[in-house]
Amino acid sequence: MHPRLTELRARLRDVYDLDMTTSLLQWDQTTYMPPGGAEARGRQLSLLGRLAHQSRTHADIGRWLDELRAHEQSLDYDSDDAGLLRVTRRSFERATRVPMELVAEFQNHASATYQAWTEARPAGDFARMAPMLEKTLDLSRRWAECFPGYESIADPLIDAQDFGMKASTVKALFADLRAALLPLVRAIADRPRHETDCLRMAVSESAQQRFAVEVIRRFGYDFERGRLDRTHHPFMTKFSLGDVRITTKYRPDDVSFALFSTLHEAGHALYEQGIAAEYEGTPLAHGTSAGVHESQSRLWENLVGRSQGFWSFYYSRLQAEMPEYRDVPIDTFYRAINSVEPSLIRIEADEVTYNLHVMLRFDFELDLLEGRLAVRDLAEAWRERIRADFGLEVDNDRDGALQDVHWYGGNIGGVFQGYTLGNVMSAQLYQAACRSRPSIPEQMARGEFTQLLEWLREHVHRHGSKFTASEIIERATGGPLKIDPYMRYLWGKYGPLYGVRPPQLAGASR
Amino acid sequence: MHPRLTELRARLRDVYDLDMTTSLLQWDQTTYMPPGGAEARGRQLSLLGRLAHQSRTHADIGRWLDELRAHEQSLDYDSDDAGLLRVTRRSFERATRVPMELVAEFQNHASATYQAWTEARPAGDFARMAPMLEKTLDLSRRWAECFPGYESIADPLIDAQDFGMKASTVKALFADLRAALLPLVRAIADRPRHETDCLRMAVSESAQQRFAVEVIRRFGYDFERGRLDRTHHPFMTKFSLGDVRITTKYRPDDVSFALFSTLHEAGHALYEQGIAAEYEGTPLAHGTSAGVHESQSRLWENLVGRSQGFWSFYYSRLQAEMPEYRDVPIDTFYRAINSVEPSLIRIEADEVTYNLHVMLRFDFELDLLEGRLAVRDLAEAWRERIRADFGLEVDNDRDGALQDVHWYGGNIGGVFQGYTLGNVMSAQLYQAACRSRPSIPEQMARGEFTQLLEWLREHVHRHGSKFTASEIIERATGGPLKIDPYMRYLWGKYGPLYGVRPPQLAGASR
Repeated sequence: MHPRLTELRARLRDVYDLDMTTSLLQWDQTTYMPPGGAEARGRQLSLLGRLAHQSRTHADIGRWLDELRAHEQSLDYDSDDAGLLRVTRRSFERATRVPMELVAEFQNHASATYQAWTEARPAGDFARMAPMLEKTLDLSRRWAECFPGYESIADPLIDAQDFGMKASTVKALFADLRAALLPLVRAIADRPRHETDCLRMAVSESAQQRFAVEVIRRFGYDFERGRLDRTHHPFMTKFSLGDVRITTKYRPDDVSFALFSTLHEAGHALYEQGIAAEYEGTPLAHGTSAGVHESQSRLWENLVGRSQGFWSFYYSRLQAEMPEYRDVPIDTFYRAINSVEPSLIRIEADEVTYNLHVMLRFDFELDLLEGRLAVRDLAEAWRERIRADFGLEVDNDRDGALQDVHWYGGNIGGVFQGYTLGNVMSAQLYQAACRSRPSIPEQMARGEFTQLLEWLREHVHRHGSKFTASEIIERATGGPLKIDPYMRYLWGKYGPLYGVRPPQLAGASR
Repeated sequence: MHPRLTELRARLRDVYDLDMTTSLLQWDQTTYMPPGGAEARGRQLSLLGRLAHQSRTHADIGRWLDELRAHEQSLDYDSDDAGLLRVTRRSFERATRVPMELVAEFQNHASATYQAWTEARPAGDFARMAPMLEKTLDLSRRWAECFPGYESIADPLIDAQDFGMKASTVKALFADLRAALLPLVRAIADRPRHETDCLRMAVSESAQQRFAVEVIRRFGYDFERGRLDRTHHPFMTKFSLGDVRITTKYRPDDVSFALFSTLHEAGHALYEQGIAAEYEGTPLAHGTSAGVHESQSRLWENLVGRSQGFWSFYYSRLQAEMPEYRDVPIDTFYRAINSVEPSLIRIEADEVTYNLHVMLRFDFELDLLEGRLAVRDLAEAWRERIRADFGLEVDNDRDGALQDVHWYGGNIGGVFQGYTLGNVMSAQLYQAACRSRPSIPEQMARGEFTQLLEWLREHVHRHGSKFTASEIIERATGGPLKIDPYMRYLWGKYGPLYGVRPPQLAGASR
C-alpha cells in the first residue's frame, strides 16, 4: 500500500469516529436524554461538529490527496483504494468550502431547534418555530452559497444528499412521476375504501415489539450489531459498522405504525450492516446516497412487508403474537395495510399518495430557498397545497408544517427528494433481483429472505459509498433510473386491490 | 472579570464537554451498546481521551494560568474564581505530567479489558484477565511514575482520587479503623444470625423499580435532570449538571440489591445535581474527591436507607408496591436489611464488614504496585485473605478477584480507599447535619428529607470541587476527619440489633 494512503486512512478514521460520536450524542438526545441535558448537549454537538470539521478539512488531507493523485489514476476504477480516494476527494472538496463557524452555528442551532420542536409540535405551535426556521433557512442558504456556480440555490443541498442530482433533474423526474401517479390516485378515489378498523385495535407494546423483532431478525437484521429503541420520530443511526441502531414508536391507536416503521428502519440498517467490513473507519462505510438508502428501507417496508406473499406466511405468526387478530381474516388485514387514501401525515401515508407528500415538501424547499415563499407563510401554504392535492383540511399545524423533524433538526433543502427517488429505485432494484434470482417471491412466502438479502448485499450494500447512486442502479439493474418499474409495481398491486386499470401506461413512462 | 479568565473558561468548557462526551460513550458501552460495537467504541474512547488530553494540557492554559497568578492572589480564597483557578492549576499540573500516548493507551486498554471482563467474570475466568491486568498494572505504574517524589508508587494514584491523601495516611487510618471494627465484628459473630429469607422473594422488576424511584424522588433526585437505566455493575455518571444518570441491576434472588444500589447511586447523583449551576462547564462542576462522593452515596444508602426511622414510614409503601411483603413484619425486614455476616461480595456486604472488603483491595493495590504481589498470584491471594478475614471459601473467582469492575475498566491504585473514607465521612457529616438541624430524624420518619438535603446542599454539594475533602469536612463538621462518629454510629445501631456492647470505645478512636 502507498505509505501516504496509510497515513490518510488513520486520519480518516479519526474523522469517522468523531462523526460516529456525534451520532451517539444525537441518538441519546432523541431516545434517552432527560430535558435537563438539552443545553449542554447543544454545546457538545457543536464542539464535536467543530472538531470533526477541523479534522475533515485538515490541510494534511489535501496535501496527501495531491500526492496520491498519480497513484489514484493508476488504480482500477472499481478497486477499493480508487473508491476511497474518489470519495475522500469529493468529501474534502465539499467540506473545505464551508467555514468552520458556519458548521458550528448549524450544529448548535439544529440542536436548539430540535429541542424546541419536540415541544412545539405536540402543541401545534408553528409561530414558536417560525423564527428558528427562518434562521435554518438563512443558514441553509449560506451553506449553499459556499458552492457558487449552481443553477438553483437548492442544488448544492440536493447534491450533498443525492450526489449528481440537482433541482432541475429532480423536478423533471417528479413531474413525470406526478403525471403517472395522478391517474392511479384518481382511479382509486372512485372506488370503495378499504376498511382499516382492524389496525386500530389496542395491542400491547410488547406484543408489537416481539412480532416486529421476529420479522426483522428473519430479514437478516443482526441484533449483535444493533438494537431497537423508542423515539419521537423513528430513525436509523450507526456508531460503527458493528453498531447500527434503529428506533421506533409504538402507537396505541395504530398497530401498523410501529410495525412498518421498524421494517423501514431495518431496511436502512440492513444496508449499513451489509457494507464490506474492511471499509470500517473510512468514508466508504456509509450508504451512498439518500435515494439509495431509502430504496432499501422502502423495499423492505413495502415491496416485502406489505406484499401478499409476505403475509401469506407471517399473518398466522402475527395472530399468534396478537390474539386480537384471531378473528380478522387475512384479506381484511392485507387490504387494511394497503389502503390508499389521501391523508395528512407523510410517514403514515400509503405507497401511492406518499410521493405527493414528498413532492409538496420538495417544492416548498425550492420555494423557500429561491425566495418565492416566506417562512411565516409556510404553514398556510401547506394547508392550501393539502387542500389542492388531497382535498383535506389541516386543522392543526402539528399535522401540517410541523410534522417532519427534518427542517427542525437540520437544514432546509435536499432532505426530501431522496424519499421518492428511493421509492422509484426500490422497484427497479427489486425487479432486477427477482430477474436474477427467481426464487425470491417463493422464498418470501416461506418467511425466508436469504436470496433477496444476498442479492442486495452483492449489488448494493457491500459497496457502501464506493459507487454513486447512478452507478449502483446502472450496475445492479443494467440501465439508468426510470419510473416504469415503479409504476408497473403500483398498478400491478393496486389494480387488483381496487379493481382499477391503467389508462395508457406507456404515456407515463420515462 | 479578568479578560484572560473569560478565555480560560471557554477553553475549560471544551475540555469539560470532551470529558462528558467520553462519559456518554462509556455509559452507552455499559448499558445499551450491542457486542458488535465494542471494537469501534474502544477506538472512539481512545480518540476522545486523546483530544481531551490535548485540550486539557494545551500550552495556552499554562500561559493564561501564569498571567492570572497575580489576579488569583488578589482574590478571596472562598471566591468561585479563586477556586476555579486553584483547581484548574492543580488539574493542569497533573495532566501535563502524563504523556498523551500513555493516556490514549490507557483508554484503549481499559475499553478492551472492560469488554473482556463482562464475559470473563460470569465465566469465573481469571486466567483470561490476568494478562490484561498485568498490562493495567504496568500502565498504572507508568502513570504514577510521571509524578516522581512519592513515598509509595501508589501515592499519585491515591492523590488523583482523594486529593491530599497518600498511602501512609490511608494505611494509618485503616489500621485504626480495623482495630476498632474487629471487636464489633467478633461480638456480632457470637450472636444469633438475622433471618434474611424475606429478601429472597421473587418480586417483579417493575415493582422493584417503582418503589426505588418513589424513594429517590423523595430524596430529591431530579428525573428532569437524570434517569435510571440497567447495567452489569451499578454506577452514576453525568453528561452535564443537567444530566446526571444512575444505573442499577435487578436481581431475581435479592430484592435488596437493586433497592440499595439505587439509593447509593442516587446519593452520588444528588451530590452532582446539587453543585452550583454556575460551575457548569468548569473543573469545579464535579464532586471534590472519591471519599466525599462516597460519603454522599453511603449516607443515603445506609444512614438514611437502612435506618429504623426511614422504614417506619416506607415499609407500608414497600408493602403496597410488593404484596409479597404483606405478611412480613417490619422488624423481620429491618433485621434482614441490617444483617451483619461475613460474605464474598463487597457491594452486597453489610455496613460493618464492608470496610474489611475495602481494606483487602486497598492492601492488594499496594502489594501489586509495590511489587510484593504478582498479578498471576492475585486470585489465590484473594482466596487466602478471605479465608483469614472471614473464614469463607471463594469457590469461583467470579466472587473473588474478578468481582469488581474497577481494575478491569480503569487503573490499579487509588480506586478503593474512597469507599471506606466515605463511610467514615458519612457518619461525621450526618452527625453534624443532625446537630445543626435537629428535625432531620423526625422528618425522615415522615418520609421527608428536605432538611437533610438542604444541609448537604449548603455544606457539601454546592461547592463542587471548590474545596478539598479536608476543607469540606472541617468546614461542615468543625473538625478534621475522625473515625469516632462512624464507630459510634455502628455501635449505636448494631449494639441494640445484636445485643452487643462496645468494649472500650475510646481505645479505638483517632
